Amino acid sequence: MNYTDLLADRTGKMGASAIREILKVVGKPGMVSLAGGIPSPDSFPMDTIKDLIDKVMSKYGSSAFQYDLSEGFTPLREAMADYLGQKGIRLSPEQVLIQSGSQGVLDSLCKVLVSKGDKIAVEAPTYLGAIQAFKPYEPCFIEMEMDDEGLIPESLEETLKNHNIKFVYTVPTFQNPTGRSISIERRKEIAEIILKYDALLVEDDPYSNLRYTGEPVPAIKTMAPDNVVYVTTLSKVLAPGLRIGVVAAPETISEWMVVVKQGVDLHTATFSQAIAAEYVAGGFLNQQLPKIIELYRPRHAAMLNALEKYFPADFTFSRPEGGMFIWVEGPEGLNLVDGYWQAVEQNVAYVPGKYFYTEETKGFSTMRLNFTMSEATVIESAIEKLAGVLKTL
Amino acid sequence: MNYTDLLADRTGKMGASAIREILKVVGKPGMVSLAGGIPSPDSFPMDTIKDLIDKVMSKYGSSAFQYDLSEGFTPLREAMADYLGQKGIRLSPEQVLIQSGSQGVLDSLCKVLVSKGDKIAVEAPTYLGAIQAFKPYEPCFIEMEMDDEGLIPESLEETLKNHNIKFVYTVPTFQNPTGRSISIERRKEIAEIILKYDALLVEDDPYSNLRYTGEPVPAIKTMAPDNVVYVTTLSKVLAPGLRIGVVAAPETISEWMVVVKQGVDLHTATFSQAIAAEYVAGGFLNQQLPKIIELYRPRHAAMLNALEKYFPADFTFSRPEGGMFIWVEGPEGLNLVDGYWQAVEQNVAYVPGKYFYTEETKGFSTMRLNFTMSEATVIESAIEKLAGVLKTL
Repeated sequence: MNYTDLLADRTGKMGASAIREILKVVGKPGMVSLAGGIPSPDSFPMDTIKDLIDKVMSKYGSSAFQYDLSEGFTPLREAMADYLGQKGIRLSPEQVLIQSGSQGVLDSLCKVLVSKGDKIAVEAPTYLGAIQAFKPYEPCFIEMEMDDEGLIPESLEETLKNHNIKFVYTVPTFQNPTGRSISIERRKEIAEIILKYDALLVEDDPYSNLRYTGEPVPAIKTMAPDNVVYVTTLSKVLAPGLRIGVVAAPETISEWMVVVKQGVDLHTATFSQAIAAEYVAGGFLNQQLPKIIELYRPRHAAMLNALEKYFPADFTFSRPEGGMFIWVEGPEGLNLVDGYWQAVEQNVAYVPGKYFYTEETKGFSTMRLNFTMSEATVIESAIEKLAGVLKTL
Repeated sequence: MNYTDLLADRTGKMGASAIREILKVVGKPGMVSLAGGIPSPDSFPMDTIKDLIDKVMSKYGSSAFQYDLSEGFTPLREAMADYLGQKGIRLSPEQVLIQSGSQGVLDSLCKVLVSKGDKIAVEAPTYLGAIQAFKPYEPCFIEMEMDDEGLIPESLEETLKNHNIKFVYTVPTFQNPTGRSISIERRKEIAEIILKYDALLVEDDPYSNLRYTGEPVPAIKTMAPDNVVYVTTLSKVLAPGLRIGVVAAPETISEWMVVVKQGVDLHTATFSQAIAAEYVAGGFLNQQLPKIIELYRPRHAAMLNALEKYFPADFTFSRPEGGMFIWVEGPEGLNLVDGYWQAVEQNVAYVPGKYFYTEETKGFSTMRLNFTMSEATVIESAIEKLAGVLKTL
């Protein structure tokens, strides 16, 4: 049987395999991977998790293992509404939905909103997982410009003026892949533009809790609550393997996301949600955060220092105050997709920046570096080695 | 902002709300629900689960909480390949994918295969969750006929002769909603027809382990391995709240399902998968099954006996040898959607059979009854009460 003939029209267009192929070598023995997008297992509160599991078993018993509502496990929705309230995002528990990671949110959002050919405005570069979630719905991507302070409001306004945009997608704080954050002044401008054009903005916020320096900035959701879909996750502040995503969307969209989720996976794993509920409601998230920050802060500093010390002068890099990533831009004409293989030969891996652009021709001279997975001394020597490779290109 | 204008073309066509509305009253105090599709919490091996969690924590540690492969947790893929091998379904671990419930399998399968307007052949009636998974992909449903022995091979052949079918969907053993099973002779015929037309068949098999009488029948997958996507789940034999679905598909389809899953939820919850891996690999599934069967067997018998004793003579019902459901057909012209509200007034709920048909006009005189959620004596009195309501219609 020729199964290729059976594939849907959308399938051939997905093509997520290039990056998968590239990253296959990352697990090779001796490799120092700056390519990861994952939290350190040392950030997981393993002892707390053990206690929480005991609590869940005695408090919820078999109901932690039964089918549950597509909307999410009620105690987790309550805990998240309360927790987000502490950050100025005021929601009732009914306005909070739990999905299977923020990936699950991005998928169901597209299923509800995006017809083939609809336009989604994204930052250039943008989160690769969002591109992977959106692509199967065959949208047309409109790229918006960024600078060191993140999304440029004028570029957003230009985009909304010239295009019929289904939604604007942004990671405003410690963006993946750049680490850039949008300043409070710009957030206000962005909120005004969104309101002016009566547009919908999806604010993806997985990293704002991971701040090593500087002051917190409020979410755009607090500035235009009716026009913003706020997305967050416990993957970076509890454990990604539980697959907990959280979304607060306008009511019509939220209702359809529940219908869609019934078809996709019925609901997110109940046991995962029960553990997460006890973690957030019990105040353990607030206790664990400083520990996670202390774990990452020296790694963050080590990478910035090493980049300063070793990288060629014609390379620039972002200086984020938090998150998991630093973005490097080399001189124009450099090809860091080809360069990747030379770095891998020297046992250092990164993600070529090209994969974070929706336009095929962009980003060849850029790369994303992760600093959460290795200790400071390992990071320093990896950056020194990588700088050596770059000088030969 | 008018969010309704923002919805995708597909969204309005989903309309899964009628059944949700109907089932909202099921949780009312005093209600005996024969409407459920869920296993009894008494079937969950809670003590074993506690031991398995301890094992997972010491064996896998933080890796049970980390991001994992979209293909599934390797020890669970190995355990399932071995387990399915015991049933004559020979697979390497690489051929087994883990997804978020069988619901997750049905969603990703459609994403890979179904373009708008593509034809899916389904049994009439068919599993409601499959309709909900398929509908967002805007297929055209072609209904195939069933009788007491399940899908009629001649109807399948007719369908494949007259239509360009993307895939045939069947629940061959203890079907939801009818409880019907396809005999071994018919399975052989079906496999031959599938091979003759070089068609793809999706065999959804959540219930075959729940056999109370009679002899096991081999899966269609064993008869046409290259043309069958085999789907199963641990929801009925461990716990649905873990959301573990299992699929073995031809390689091309399987590879794309992995790409699709990256976009949908990255992977199924690692901790859930680790518990499931230890359950299956440790032989606990084989130990628990007889207990689950002993729990359900008297309930199954009680419902069949009560139907025989109390139901009006012009009603017929299926006599499954296992599973969770019995299918009732009333005299033509009867409306059991309207009748539902009268039953609910008497504190008995069922699912009107209409919702299991893809054609709007069918199934008004039918209903699905579940026997796993209540004890035998409760079932008997509920059926007596329901019979009383039916006589007034």
